[in-house]
This record gives sequence, C-alpha cells and structure tokens, in this order.
Amino acid sequence: MITETPISSEMFKQSMRLLAGGVCIVATNSNGEWHGLTMTAVCSLTMDPPSLIACVNRDAGAHGIMSATRRVSVNVLTHDHMDLAELFSSSRVKGPERFDEKRWTAMASGVPALIDALTVLDCEVIQETAVGQHSVFFCEVKNVRLQPDRRPLVHFNREFCAVQPVYES
Amino acid sequence: MITETPISSEMFKQSMRLLAGGVCIVATNSNGEWHGLTMTAVCSLTMDPPSLIACVNRDAGAHGIMSATRRVSVNVLTHDHMDLAELFSSSRVKGPERFDEKRWTAMASGVPALIDALTVLDCEVIQETAVGQHSVFFCEVKNVRLQPDRRPLVHFNREFCAVQPVYES
Repeated sequence: MITETPISSEMFKQSMRLLAGGVCIVATNSNGEWHGLTMTAVCSLTMDPPSLIACVNRDAGAHGIMSATRRVSVNVLTHDHMDLAELFSSSRVKGPERFDEKRWTAMASGVPALIDALTVLDCEVIQETAVGQHSVFFCEVKNVRLQPDRRPLVHFNREFCAVQPVYES
Repeated sequence: MITETPISSEMFKQSMRLLAGGVCIVATNSNGEWHGLTMTAVCSLTMDPPSLIACVNRDAGAHGIMSATRRVSVNVLTHDHMDLAELFSSSRVKGPERFDEKRWTAMASGVPALIDALTVLDCEVIQETAVGQHSVFFCEVKNVRLQPDRRPLVHFNREFCAVQPVYES
C-alpha cells in the first residue's frame, strides 16, 4: 500500500530525482570568457517562436553571467559525456578552465558549442523569472547544430544512464 | 563537419526530439470527471517552495480544465507504462474514458493518481504564463506518493526507452 505524504524538502528531492532528464551543459560567453554548468532542468516550451525553458540556481557561478549576457548555448550531451557532466557540476574546476579547446568551438554568436553534442541550441534569453532560489530563463532558439545519430545521456535517481528502446509486447 | 543552421520549425522539432525526457501523465479532476495527457515538458523548478514547471499546449483537451481547476497531478511513468503513454496522447480515446479505475485512485485533493507510478506529485497551479501556443504552469507540490524502486520511461527521438546506468570507464 502506497501512502500519500505531505511534501517536505526531503520528499521533494526524492521525487524530483525520479523525473529522468536529458543532461545538458548550458554555457555562455562573456567578453571571450566561457562559463557553463551541467543541468537537467531544461524543457521544450513552444514552436512559434521556437523556445525552451531552463531553470538555473541563482547560487550557480554561471547564473549571474548568463543573466548579464542574455545569450546561452544549450549543449545536449551523449552517453559518452559523463566526464563532462561531472566536470561542469564539480566545485573543483570553475569558470573558463572547464572548457577544453579541443572539445569546444565558438558559434557565430560567440557562445560555446560542444563539438560532439547531440544538438547545440544557440539561444537568446528573452525573459527571466525568479522563483525561490531559481531563475526560469525563457530562451528563444536562434541557431542550431544537430548530430541526431548519437545517443543521449540521461540522469535518473542520482545515476547517469544510457537509453534503450522499449518495444511493445 | 557540423554546420550551424538558423533555426526553422523543422530544425527546432528535430533538436527538441533529442532532449530526452521522463514521460509523465499530467491529470486533473473537474467535479469528479478526470482528464489528463501525456507530457515530457515537465521539469523541477525550486526547493522552497517545492515547485515544478509543466509546459502544456493550449490545444490539448485537458488544458482548459487544468487552467480552471488549478490542481493537477504529475504521474511519472515507469518503463511498463508505454501503453498508458500512448493512450493519453491518442486522439482515439479522450476525456474520462482514458482512466481505467483498476489503475487509478483519487488523492485526498481529488486529483487522479496512477497506482503504480514512480512518483505522483499533487500540485497547486500558482501561476500560468502564456508563450506562443503553450502555457507554462508554475506548480507548487503539496503531497506526494513515492515508489522509488521502479525504473522510468523516457522519450527520445520519437521512441519510448528504458534506462541503464553508465559506469565510468
């Protein structure tokens, strides 16, 4: 028998870990300095204008810079990118040192693109709404790089995962 | 060599398909009538207050009802729930007929809970923001049901998928 429980911080954290999400690195360019962080709280918003949402913790080092530049790249990671997902969420290495120039290139707008990402979306931040400790960035997609033959990296219950199609029985 | 392309509707659809997402059924109760739809555009927002975001197409049958009741359940599906994911996104069966009473129960607030979901979040809609054809529902989580030993259903590139941990090499 499953019981219904009033929400608490611990229960909320536990339940949100069960919402699987594609792992992204959201990054920005500030006068030639690159900054970025690992995120799963990114989702598609609407087709016209082509838009997505990213929910960023305001404590994150890159938050203030993204907020100032209003231009970000959303780099969707593949199952080979676990090292990058960890690097960009680590407190050991921060700021521009996270970017290995052999793995990243600049888009025309200046934002960093991960060379072998599944897709990179170059976005303009059109609105930022604060809720609690987070900012919701409403982002309009301007340019895209696509490599759709690759397989994604997914985060579920504190583990990095690969995906496999389920076929109907 | 990957090229950078200005965004178009087709390129946006292609790139958003590459953002893997946990599959949910978002549902509501309107005077005893249940309505719901399959979604992947759900993400965690912030801890205090415990909140999440859901981006719903305003053409969806359940949209207006969710907007009116301002109370929704977010049911996170397991890899066994592909049939439900298809049923709740089909145009064949609509409205309350989608709910099989052997598989669903009512939460204290009246919203439908899928009995064997990974987690069900009973949410109050605290704000609705329109962007293009979609509404962003800002939802505050009030109560929760958890079954964290199950495995999720993920949607990626038009396929339903199961996940498997990737271990560091």
